[in-house]
Amino acid sequence: MSAAASHLHKCTDATSSPIKTTIHFSITDKVGALDECLAAIRSMNISLTRIESRPSKTADWDYDFFVDFDAESSEQVSRVAKSLEPIAKQVHIVGNGGASSTSADLPESVPWFPRKMGDLDTFADKVLEMGEELDSDHPGAKDAEYRARRAEITKIAKTYKTGQPIPHVEYTSLEVQTWAAVFNKLTGMFPSHACREHQYVFPLLIQNCGYGPHNIPQLEVVSKFLKDCTGFTLRPVMGLLTSRDFLNGLAFRVFHSTQYIRHHSKPLYTPEPDVCHELLGHVPLFANPDFADFSQEIGLASLGATDEDIERLATIYWFTVEFGICRQGDEVRAYGAGLLSSFGELEYCLSDKPEIRPFEPAKVAQQKYPITEYQPVYFVAESFKDAQMRVREFANSCNRPFSVRYNAYTESIEILDSKEKVIRYAQSIKTDMLTLVDALEKLSA
Amino acid sequence: MSAAASHLHKCTDATSSPIKTTIHFSITDKVGALDECLAAIRSMNISLTRIESRPSKTADWDYDFFVDFDAESSEQVSRVAKSLEPIAKQVHIVGNGGASSTSADLPESVPWFPRKMGDLDTFADKVLEMGEELDSDHPGAKDAEYRARRAEITKIAKTYKTGQPIPHVEYTSLEVQTWAAVFNKLTGMFPSHACREHQYVFPLLIQNCGYGPHNIPQLEVVSKFLKDCTGFTLRPVMGLLTSRDFLNGLAFRVFHSTQYIRHHSKPLYTPEPDVCHELLGHVPLFANPDFADFSQEIGLASLGATDEDIERLATIYWFTVEFGICRQGDEVRAYGAGLLSSFGELEYCLSDKPEIRPFEPAKVAQQKYPITEYQPVYFVAESFKDAQMRVREFANSCNRPFSVRYNAYTESIEILDSKEKVIRYAQSIKTDMLTLVDALEKLSA
Amino acid sequence: MSAAASHLHKCTDATSSPIKTTIHFSITDKVGALDECLAAIRSMNISLTRIESRPSKTADWDYDFFVDFDAESSEQVSRVAKSLEPIAKQVHIVGNGGASSTSADLPESVPWFPRKMGDLDTFADKVLEMGEELDSDHPGAKDAEYRARRAEITKIAKTYKTGQPIPHVEYTSLEVQTWAAVFNKLTGMFPSHACREHQYVFPLLIQNCGYGPHNIPQLEVVSKFLKDCTGFTLRPVMGLLTSRDFLNGLAFRVFHSTQYIRHHSKPLYTPEPDVCHELLGHVPLFANPDFADFSQEIGLASLGATDEDIERLATIYWFTVEFGICRQGDEVRAYGAGLLSSFGELEYCLSDKPEIRPFEPAKVAQQKYPITEYQPVYFVAESFKDAQMRVREFANSCNRPFSVRYNAYTESIEILDSKEKVIRYAQSIKTDMLTLVDALEKLSA
Amino acid sequence: MSAAASHLHKCTDATSSPIKTTIHFSITDKVGALDECLAAIRSMNISLTRIESRPSKTADWDYDFFVDFDAESSEQVSRVAKSLEPIAKQVHIVGNGGASSTSADLPESVPWFPRKMGDLDTFADKVLEMGEELDSDHPGAKDAEYRARRAEITKIAKTYKTGQPIPHVEYTSLEVQTWAAVFNKLTGMFPSHACREHQYVFPLLIQNCGYGPHNIPQLEVVSKFLKDCTGFTLRPVMGLLTSRDFLNGLAFRVFHSTQYIRHHSKPLYTPEPDVCHELLGHVPLFANPDFADFSQEIGLASLGATDEDIERLATIYWFTVEFGICRQGDEVRAYGAGLLSSFGELEYCLSDKPEIRPFEPAKVAQQKYPITEYQPVYFVAESFKDAQMRVREFANSCNRPFSVRYNAYTESIEILDSKEKVIRYAQSIKTDMLTLVDALEKLSA
Repeated sequence: MSAAASHLHKCTDATSSPIKTTIHFSITDKVGALDECLAAIRSMNISLTRIESRPSKTADWDYDFFVDFDAESSEQVSRVAKSLEPIAKQVHIVGNGGASSTSADLPESVPWFPRKMGDLDTFADKVLEMGEELDSDHPGAKDAEYRARRAEITKIAKTYKTGQPIPHVEYTSLEVQTWAAVFNKLTGMFPSHACREHQYVFPLLIQNCGYGPHNIPQLEVVSKFLKDCTGFTLRPVMGLLTSRDFLNGLAFRVFHSTQYIRHHSKPLYTPEPDVCHELLGHVPLFANPDFADFSQEIGLASLGATDEDIERLATIYWFTVEFGICRQGDEVRAYGAGLLSSFGELEYCLSDKPEIRPFEPAKVAQQKYPITEYQPVYFVAESFKDAQMRVREFANSCNRPFSVRYNAYTESIEILDSKEKVIRYAQSIKTDMLTLVDALEKLSA
Repeated sequence: MSAAASHLHKCTDATSSPIKTTIHFSITDKVGALDECLAAIRSMNISLTRIESRPSKTADWDYDFFVDFDAESSEQVSRVAKSLEPIAKQVHIVGNGGASSTSADLPESVPWFPRKMGDLDTFADKVLEMGEELDSDHPGAKDAEYRARRAEITKIAKTYKTGQPIPHVEYTSLEVQTWAAVFNKLTGMFPSHACREHQYVFPLLIQNCGYGPHNIPQLEVVSKFLKDCTGFTLRPVMGLLTSRDFLNGLAFRVFHSTQYIRHHSKPLYTPEPDVCHELLGHVPLFANPDFADFSQEIGLASLGATDEDIERLATIYWFTVEFGICRQGDEVRAYGAGLLSSFGELEYCLSDKPEIRPFEPAKVAQQKYPITEYQPVYFVAESFKDAQMRVREFANSCNRPFSVRYNAYTESIEILDSKEKVIRYAQSIKTDMLTLVDALEKLSA
Repeated sequence: MSAAASHLHKCTDATSSPIKTTIHFSITDKVGALDECLAAIRSMNISLTRIESRPSKTADWDYDFFVDFDAESSEQVSRVAKSLEPIAKQVHIVGNGGASSTSADLPESVPWFPRKMGDLDTFADKVLEMGEELDSDHPGAKDAEYRARRAEITKIAKTYKTGQPIPHVEYTSLEVQTWAAVFNKLTGMFPSHACREHQYVFPLLIQNCGYGPHNIPQLEVVSKFLKDCTGFTLRPVMGLLTSRDFLNGLAFRVFHSTQYIRHHSKPLYTPEPDVCHELLGHVPLFANPDFADFSQEIGLASLGATDEDIERLATIYWFTVEFGICRQGDEVRAYGAGLLSSFGELEYCLSDKPEIRPFEPAKVAQQKYPITEYQPVYFVAESFKDAQMRVREFANSCNRPFSVRYNAYTESIEILDSKEKVIRYAQSIKTDMLTLVDALEKLSA
Repeated sequence: MSAAASHLHKCTDATSSPIKTTIHFSITDKVGALDECLAAIRSMNISLTRIESRPSKTADWDYDFFVDFDAESSEQVSRVAKSLEPIAKQVHIVGNGGASSTSADLPESVPWFPRKMGDLDTFADKVLEMGEELDSDHPGAKDAEYRARRAEITKIAKTYKTGQPIPHVEYTSLEVQTWAAVFNKLTGMFPSHACREHQYVFPLLIQNCGYGPHNIPQLEVVSKFLKDCTGFTLRPVMGLLTSRDFLNGLAFRVFHSTQYIRHHSKPLYTPEPDVCHELLGHVPLFANPDFADFSQEIGLASLGATDEDIERLATIYWFTVEFGICRQGDEVRAYGAGLLSSFGELEYCLSDKPEIRPFEPAKVAQQKYPITEYQPVYFVAESFKDAQMRVREFANSCNRPFSVRYNAYTESIEILDSKEKVIRYAQSIKTDMLTLVDALEKLSA
């Protein structure tokens, strides 16, 4: 079974007792408005954990407020919202992780989604199964020492906040041995099985990020390398996120990566993603600009998508980022991390046993797949650029009632739902077009 | 006299003794090429401080190398370069801060410029006059305690590296008193003299960044706020940079900010930029998206510009970011930081004494200006967007033989000097255009 | 059987005796070059029918020559070409209609295609079967009077040249009766079977172009109306063109239309396209901007395409412009002219008898179809815009080694095969982008 | 004095007696709406000269009506308009040539302007002074035979309609002698005085359009040549149009050209434009794509402009298309037709006598100029592309409250004043962008 499979399990949250709540609203610019609003909030007798005010992204000269607090009850949340009505417009409330609440500038039915990089912090403790304990089929399930070590490492993810360096993990020699076993086995296969993009980047990882049989690379070092290459970064994660959270991260070019390693008793097997899967399977591809674009495209499509569309996008993710194969001249090669980190399936997927179909997202999205055995069918991409365009079209067919774009300067998502924002976007394209023409003219001179 | 004036003084570098050198070159992708190259470098018996290899930005499948070392002599530098020739292509050398050396993918005559955010670290110890000691006309010149305190704070800038949080400075009560004097004086004038954009953002700075008479805001807090708004960030600086370095920073949306404060004996005067000038004058404007675009446009134009063009751009910077005024309905208001942080000149500039001319960059660039007294002429911008377009045209007229763009994902400059890069850029514009049309359609539905 | 079917028959040219030849070449601009070249051509002792020189579309300051002559033998053609070599570059020869010859700025294997509107004149006498005589299954095959009348009308097409008004045909009362029978039958079905776009335009045709049971509209009047709406124009045609010629015409927004009418003995049947099919089926759709874009997209893809790709594009044309159905809210409606001009198939196609599939060009292109009976399968388009984008992608997958665009100002095709032309194109997009942003800003003000 | 000067004289219309009126309005699509509307119009008892209905350019599924009639009085016009109100929306009336009336989709104050090529027909009989008789200073003023011949030729222009070929004029040998004198004198100067673009095209005109000392080229032949090159066409004109009408024509890439020739008594002088001025001065430049873009840009800016802006644009036209000079490497050369067709001024303008200034439209627009003597100041353009961009900026500064674009397919102006139209435009730019990227990729492959 591939570790990657479990990325896509459905979420079953347990609600914890104080209700972590975010209220987001806008107020109109006028003298003293900000202070009045702040005073009103402070008089509400709630346990505030954050108040932020920012220039409005929606209307010129308005202000946006973001207020986090720990509510005692849902009645209290309603009361707070109600008392804001006289001073604020577009009040919206996000409760306990937010997955089900709505935003005032969007229709009621649109699920919550992160709007700025820092919002990803809310994913930290929303891990699915295996967050802190292990399934009975996990080779380390009965190894108390392994479980303690795993918990020690996942604690990093639990407390990690946006912008911090990812803490260094001093891996034990047993852990390094496990890594070495995987590393040696797989690197022997890459030349004949991995796609050109993977093979091109791998030596750079050896030279710059400490890849090698005797060292488990540090996420922080790898993350910085990826940032240089494509702007992708890694975030430590405790275990499996919901599909929605995981895909939403990709919209920010953020990949949630585990930091612990599989159990030493079975170095070539793991039922969950581990650092071998991430570093040998995923990381090399995220250094490729076209693959980065492709991955972000899936992420952007997932923002505020319906549950059905999340499932379809997760299936596309499964058959590409995890189990994708691609055309390379006359050959077919693997680029999916689930393949590149699995000795057995890497060989199998390029044999004549599985069925091979062209990558057509609308079809892919409906393909059922097993998560505990090799895939019976793979989809072959012509190129990452082509795959990106196809995913975009697929996304358009999802009929989400709004468009988004990622602003890499502010590391935030912009919902293109007002004339002002669309004009600003058009202006930036115009500026890019001026630069492009200038570049073409100079290149040809 | 305005503090801002000295931003623009000419550089008079003293050369320090070990020759800090960067060699940048590319090699062709083939099996083992990276290792061979690394071995060759290591065998050169030089004092290496960095070796980085990255995916090539120039040609698909090539690799780029960046090697830093401390050379004993310029002969050694030449020897190293020569010994690389058999294995590398496009070798280029940047010596001691690099301001005069060249890049292999550009004509010989193009001055060095930073290509990635981290390159800004090389500016730290290239400060002009007043870096560590003070001019005789500085009110604190004879105050040993002040000089020591100032040095204590500038040490932060000296050792600051890209990506780190800017260290907290615990300001003394005397320092806060000085700040309070400036703060109170100026905030009284803003409603009638500052431009709408400044007034709009100022209450947000009070509410979110600790602006107020009794507290000097911390650069780190302010920098994060700006990042949220426009992607601008602050970097601590010891004192005055050369115009070239300073403007180059703007290309990355990085503003070099002092962290120390003027001498308490003359709270309404300073001959150099200080934290009052930065926080009250510059910061509010960098929260405005159009002003941010405008400032970056000047920065992008400065990359690799000739000395003459740097001087022209610095003059434009002077008459806009430092001493600009703008039309606001029927009125004219100040947006330049040199004005907004100077009690006297703020009043003067909107009086009928100075001459007012339209903002035409080609003219502005040739305007002489005094740095120790009020400006006799100001240029009035119609809007920041309009000013940006005009600066871009001006930049085009500079005939720099290449075009650049800033990639906010990788925080690096791309030189659009190959078909591959132009195509990739065109593809990204195409993708943006798809999003724009999608947004327009959804907005209208 | 539907009249439209025969549009797509394969060509079986009979070669006529004098070899109509076009030579196209470029010369370098220098003093007297044009005269020298002209003198050289005149001295060749050939029977010239046209000499044109024009500004080069390929390189600045070069000149393009177009020389037509009637060659006595292919040896003479070679001799002429050879004698041009010293003075000209990029000599290319198009023989007898040109379908198999090549162009010097394109690879040898690219079939000839029209570059300017006037080139369509060469199609006139290249008609397939039924050009002048009729198949035995034609209801008028044995009616000498009908055949004579038909020949009288097709003579117009035979001599028609680009830019001329299409001559008026005075239809006989018998012909009008035939038309009336078709008109009355079909207009009764349109409200319930035709797509919204067809129904929207039809009353305009009645009011402006003389549509009605008692009058057969004149092509010239209809052509002018279409020109106003979408820039499409009609050209009279003797009968069936090859798929290549017919589709090539669409690249210029030119639709080749018959002008004669079916035999009066069977008013609801015709084995070939006739004026009823064109005016009632095709014309209303060409007044729709999205459908016009869609049709031109197919045309552009056909320029210089391989024989295999022409066949695939002709199949796509068949299942859209001739036999397409589309989604309209919750319903499906007909927009293909073969359906809209066939009483029986119009009813059948929206019944539950045929199979309905989504419009996926790659699939459509491989669908076999009968031409003498109702279609067993139809493909449903989501919208014409969507269909256009899909055809464009399909066209990209054809891997034609060059890109084209249509210049509506000069009514000519530009091959985007040089930096100069691509830059000029990029400049025009830049200008459009400036206009778009200006329009957005003004719209929102 | 230069002939060209008089293009720019102010109009002094004499009102003729039946009031030629155009009513334009829209109706909503519903069953029978077109017929009802037509019936209503017919019942109005007015002397109809045209009724056209078309698909709406403004709102999907609406219809646009254009009704022309000869009104007996302005009261009748009002009555008709009033009676349309119940059935129509957006009624607007254009009276007697239309220069002062308004359009319902635009603010009241926007002057009428042509929307489709055919609207240019309304200019025919709106000629200024010299339309049919001659000023006393005209060398032919007292030559009855010359005046009769001139009237004979202008009659062509008076009755010319869009789409027709321009009738052939059989010039007399005396006329050809006059032409020869001018032709020989000027062609001797072109190599040293005319810009590169003029010299490049001139030999093509000799070879293709019958240019030469012994033949006056026919407008029809020249017009077709220009259409091939840039899409510009010529229209015969009786004499001087108003600046507004003349510039409006350029928006359609239409140049209004006289067809008669100056008086034989003074072959090197004419107080009005004549066929020598048009053919030797203007025509060669309109074959250049950048110059064509530039000229159209002025034309587009003139559509619906205020009288003040028309005057400013006419001044810009004067100093470019008529009297422009341009940089050519290290030299300056003439490209204005007023210079290229005037033996004396062509020499003078490149001497050191006149003042030379850079081409800055805002300045140019305010420059006063003499029309009966050589210009004291000329403005030098860097390139036609650069000049186009500058005119566009200037046009934006005019603050016309709407944006327009020319649709070369339908030969009509689109006012980008609704979301639907802007979206359609954005879609077409998107399509162009797809083609551009495709072309770049193929070019580089």
